[in-house]
Amino acid sequence: MSRFITFEGLDGSGKSTHLRRVAAQLAARGIPHLVTHEPGGTPLGEALRGLLKGERYGVCDGFVELLLVFASRRQHLRTVIEPALARGETVLCDRFTDSTFAYQGAGRGVPNESIAALDELATGGRRPDRTLLFDLSPEAARERGAGRRRRRGERLDRFDAEQLAFYERVRAGFLALARTEPERFRVLDASGPAGATAALVEAALADLWPGGGE
Amino acid sequence: MSRFITFEGLDGSGKSTHLRRVAAQLAARGIPHLVTHEPGGTPLGEALRGLLKGERYGVCDGFVELLLVFASRRQHLRTVIEPALARGETVLCDRFTDSTFAYQGAGRGVPNESIAALDELATGGRRPDRTLLFDLSPEAARERGAGRRRRRGERLDRFDAEQLAFYERVRAGFLALARTEPERFRVLDASGPAGATAALVEAALADLWPGGGE
Repeated sequence: MSRFITFEGLDGSGKSTHLRRVAAQLAARGIPHLVTHEPGGTPLGEALRGLLKGERYGVCDGFVELLLVFASRRQHLRTVIEPALARGETVLCDRFTDSTFAYQGAGRGVPNESIAALDELATGGRRPDRTLLFDLSPEAARERGAGRRRRRGERLDRFDAEQLAFYERVRAGFLALARTEPERFRVLDASGPAGATAALVEAALADLWPGGGE
Repeated sequence: MSRFITFEGLDGSGKSTHLRRVAAQLAARGIPHLVTHEPGGTPLGEALRGLLKGERYGVCDGFVELLLVFASRRQHLRTVIEPALARGETVLCDRFTDSTFAYQGAGRGVPNESIAALDELATGGRRPDRTLLFDLSPEAARERGAGRRRRRGERLDRFDAEQLAFYERVRAGFLALARTEPERFRVLDASGPAGATAALVEAALADLWPGGGE
């Protein structure tokens, strides 16, 4: 049976690394799957991501951003995710609607009701079958991301107080979502070494593919 | 006093020509005004318009299109139209939300309730102070547009039955909107010569600038 599984958390929480690891395990077990991500995931979505990043377009507020995010998401859902599920593939998706509630909602203060209303219109309130939330303090996530940026030779600034407060709100937003839907969410402590988190990931998905595949 | 005036109708109905004529009259009378248009009207809006036209992005359905249209419209409203009105300028806008109800709604069958819900979220249901609807049969509008395209050396295809039915639905959609809001709309017979329509336009706006300016 195909499943729609999302990986959520702050940048630097390890979610993308563990997504690739799960994909490798599914491949080894011969379970058909598709790996995808948001924002983006389609040619239209990547173009919209470019517009959102492009300073010359001067996106005027969080609600315009939200409309573009949900246009991208509907395109992604209709042209990539749903067709894969219909083919019987398991979909592993790096970020989905929970990130919108956490970043735009909890982080930037766009009202939850607006996000929920738009989500209902754009996706019919579509939710994954399971969501792994890689929980980590902003400082620790930053430290991990910092290592990556240093290896790339990128400049490294300290969090200022405003940034730190923003990521604290995003983290709290994710945890609040997890409390609202405990059936769907698995909250994983991502503060330990990668091997420890990998064991948590395996345990959190074990019931989906019992006995080594199906 | 600043006003928000929109010009609606099929392509080839003469709305853009008459908009320019009204702008020239306002200029001659020293009434500050801004001329703008949809789709587009901002750098972000023009970029989104390009995405919607770009076949390689394969916009999957009318609802994705609608999300992009309203993202563009909110950006236009917030960064162009409202600031101009706040400066005391009259805004002359070629197409606005009525075109979305007529083309995406009546024409392509996106449910009116979805458009209205999205409009409420994106613009608070913002309506112009006055809307001039240039009413014309699709065949006549086509014939005028055809002249323009011939002068540009563009190829000219006949309407097929499907296209004709589409534009008939769009025209009926515009007329239905006008019936719902008779206070805001002025329906102008655009089938006569340009001079005759210009007189109708002048009469339809006369109460806004009585006595040659204010």
